Amino acid sequence: MSKQISLGIDIGGTNTAIGTVAQDGTVINKTSIPTPKDGNVEAYVASIKSTINELVSALKALDPDAEVLGIGIGAPNANYHKGTIEHAPNLAFKGVVPLVAKLKEAMPEMKYISLTNDANAAALGEMIYGGGRGMKDFVMYTLGTGVGSGIICNGDLLYGHDGFAGECGHTMLVPGGRMCGCGVQGHLEAYCSAGGIKRTAFELLAHYNATDSLLADKSYNELEAKDVSIAASKGDKIALETFKLTGDYLARGIADSIHHTAPEAVFLFGGPTAAGDLLMNPLKEALTKYLLPTFKNADGTPKAKILISQLKAGDAAIVGASALVWKELEK
Amino acid sequence: MSKQISLGIDIGGTNTAIGTVAQDGTVINKTSIPTPKDGNVEAYVASIKSTINELVSALKALDPDAEVLGIGIGAPNANYHKGTIEHAPNLAFKGVVPLVAKLKEAMPEMKYISLTNDANAAALGEMIYGGGRGMKDFVMYTLGTGVGSGIICNGDLLYGHDGFAGECGHTMLVPGGRMCGCGVQGHLEAYCSAGGIKRTAFELLAHYNATDSLLADKSYNELEAKDVSIAASKGDKIALETFKLTGDYLARGIADSIHHTAPEAVFLFGGPTAAGDLLMNPLKEALTKYLLPTFKNADGTPKAKILISQLKAGDAAIVGASALVWKELEK
Repeated sequence: MSKQISLGIDIGGTNTAIGTVAQDGTVINKTSIPTPKDGNVEAYVASIKSTINELVSALKALDPDAEVLGIGIGAPNANYHKGTIEHAPNLAFKGVVPLVAKLKEAMPEMKYISLTNDANAAALGEMIYGGGRGMKDFVMYTLGTGVGSGIICNGDLLYGHDGFAGECGHTMLVPGGRMCGCGVQGHLEAYCSAGGIKRTAFELLAHYNATDSLLADKSYNELEAKDVSIAASKGDKIALETFKLTGDYLARGIADSIHHTAPEAVFLFGGPTAAGDLLMNPLKEALTKYLLPTFKNADGTPKAKILISQLKAGDAAIVGASALVWKELEK
Repeated sequence: MSKQISLGIDIGGTNTAIGTVAQDGTVINKTSIPTPKDGNVEAYVASIKSTINELVSALKALDPDAEVLGIGIGAPNANYHKGTIEHAPNLAFKGVVPLVAKLKEAMPEMKYISLTNDANAAALGEMIYGGGRGMKDFVMYTLGTGVGSGIICNGDLLYGHDGFAGECGHTMLVPGGRMCGCGVQGHLEAYCSAGGIKRTAFELLAHYNATDSLLADKSYNELEAKDVSIAASKGDKIALETFKLTGDYLARGIADSIHHTAPEAVFLFGGPTAAGDLLMNPLKEALTKYLLPTFKNADGTPKAKILISQLKAGDAAIVGASALVWKELEK
């Protein structure tokens, strides 16, 4: 029996990662090409095509029977319905790029080519390969430079009318609060992204005038969220309170997602989850404050499971994107 | 050709309204029975059955060919998946009531019997009979004593894992803010329900010491949201600012719903919508502040249409509930 393979493409601001993925979510081989700085779509498509051909040739050298089914793509500002990337602020492409149509033209041998935003792809990856296997309703928050999310309802991604649903990173947490990257004040992303965690730490340093904190000797541009995590694990009070507050902020947004979609579970993915219980315990505790009784157990704990993603950090974007192919196959 | 009819039941804390509804959403006849104060489910089911038999007999006297297809029920704390009403604080029933099973036993001639919460039923009513005809993705907020909501995704209600999705009235608007009926501080319902509007008016009276306001001569227990609406239409400054603030509060919650589900439209239903542009204009203006660019037009206005429900106020609950039958028929 031939082994079925899907391709995952993760389009980032600087690089585009491309890999071949087995049906169990294992990345077989992968590589990376630059995302064009000049916005030249034709050259980019040609480069993706030749890279895929190399990966597939190498794969077939190992397993001549391998059958490549299609390509799944995760990208910022991706419109699933139209197969386009639209006005992505961190990419050099101008306006609306019909990437799926162009790839289908270049590679007619691919049965399925499909595109969605990176957080949606991660949620699909969790459902097809990760901790969401067997679940039909869950929400995934991806915590990184920004905060993305993907909502799985009834076994499929919630796309909404125009394909852009699932922007839970822009839940209003603090009216008139911190400036978010999108230009609106008080959004969750400004509090719960890696940068948001740093901002909380700096606010607390200033609030307590905490000259003895392990975080007090790094500049704003030097400090990273992982430094806060390391300091917290050493018992630093500012770092511990930073995670406590981050858990509380995140709980407000997750409570909103639970009230909207009644998921079986909420998965968290990304760098800040490496803090483990330092983040998860305050998050779960705060959820008991913010949830409607309908969404809580008799002991006050959330009915929805609050879980860390089972996707491997390094491969998650490729693996998530490749999950689109399996999802299309089901349809 | 026989005319197909569905029955709608709206279970309220005091009364249960029951009506027969034509396929165009017209209520043909309707009546009301008391919702039991003693929590006796058996007697309640018998009473519903005899009331339905009377309504159907009267209907068949008018149109002997009328075919009754089934019963749709809107109720608080309703679990669509299980057909149960669960721990409803405003009903006398104890614990979990398997209402659908009991009605099916009592009336085996009904092809479809189905139950959902009242706001979900209203959303279905909007899709089947109202302004949501032809739409596949929209959100409906019902503003009344509380604030309910129903989310239509991909042409069906979003139920979530346990059937309780769509509680947008409990979006956290103001951390540490007003006490909500559910016991959590700062939820949308405490700001945008009819009572929430009154609370805003009283806060503003106190803030400005507005002894000359048209609202300054009624007690807290006397004043109703519609008094605020009347005063606003006369140019009363406190009343106008009350609606401006209500629109702003509502916009924060609706922005969250748009960020989660990317709807084609958001419908508002209920008493406070009688204020018309007094509410809708500040709401639309505030949405331009709170939405991600992805969800706005080039001129900053929301892409999602912000609309007042087309369901008739008096019949909406029965009509909405009856829509469940047509929805089940589609499946």
